Amino acid sequence: MKKVKAQLRRGKNGESVTKSIDFGPLADWVGFNLRMAQEAAFEAFSHRSKDIGESPGRFGTLTLIARNPGISQTELSLANGRDKSSLTPVVEDLVRRGLVARKRVNSDKRTYSLHLTAAGKRTLAQMTRCARQHERSLDAVIGQRYRKQFIATLKRIAAEIE
Amino acid sequence: MKKVKAQLRRGKNGESVTKSIDFGPLADWVGFNLRMAQEAAFEAFSHRSKDIGESPGRFGTLTLIARNPGISQTELSLANGRDKSSLTPVVEDLVRRGLVARKRVNSDKRTYSLHLTAAGKRTLAQMTRCARQHERSLDAVIGQRYRKQFIATLKRIAAEIE
Repeated sequence: MKKVKAQLRRGKNGESVTKSIDFGPLADWVGFNLRMAQEAAFEAFSHRSKDIGESPGRFGTLTLIARNPGISQTELSLANGRDKSSLTPVVEDLVRRGLVARKRVNSDKRTYSLHLTAAGKRTLAQMTRCARQHERSLDAVIGQRYRKQFIATLKRIAAEIE
Repeated sequence: MKKVKAQLRRGKNGESVTKSIDFGPLADWVGFNLRMAQEAAFEAFSHRSKDIGESPGRFGTLTLIARNPGISQTELSLANGRDKSSLTPVVEDLVRRGLVARKRVNSDKRTYSLHLTAAGKRTLAQMTRCARQHERSLDAVIGQRYRKQFIATLKRIAAEIE
């Protein structure tokens, strides 16, 4: 049984807990470490963008709509790695708050096309600035030499894991 | 503006969408690719463990309680990369379903210590078998030669990103 020193982040109340935690097999597993890295990165981006008052989870969605005006919800959910049922409330929230406009496609009454509004474009521009800073801090941790290979591996997991 | 071919996974209804999507800066950003890899890995683990009838998100929590009997909720939330408020409903659900026992610590009435029940140990054993298979399929994607460096990078992100 492997004892590892927990790499514990500071708790919400600022307490620093450095007690030794036994992670067992989790310590050397990709799945657990991938989740821990994703949660830490998401939290850091949330912190960086909190003044904008927008959930950081909306950044990918807004960027994909901006880059692909008229994209359908099905295309968006696939591009964004979410199934359609979990994307629908996200899009509805963005429409309600005036950041995204949703139009029915004439040729198919069940399909909607999505566009950013002027307010959506302004919010996205603010979030993109935060995201660029966030990427620079991720780059500083990963190291420039190794970055390309790291991203290639993440892409392979997203595309190939079964 | 960079056009990239979307590495789209098959949709819920089996449709294969290979339309070219413009990911803009997301294509080369660590943050977005980390999230896409994490979501694909989580979905694959969910699929693999669905016969157990347990949420895959419980696996880390059950393993950490099993390896550290008597762990407090604060220690658990820090070790598991979640803040205490998002861990509390997870623990309450596990207690309600008889997988985890929660006891008050005599020396501190506000602190609970956590243990797995016999049912919790059985569920964890089943999930661990699925997790081992899942790790093997992740290893096959990542490649054995590169695995150690990949995990080390994920650990650095979890520990250092700000």
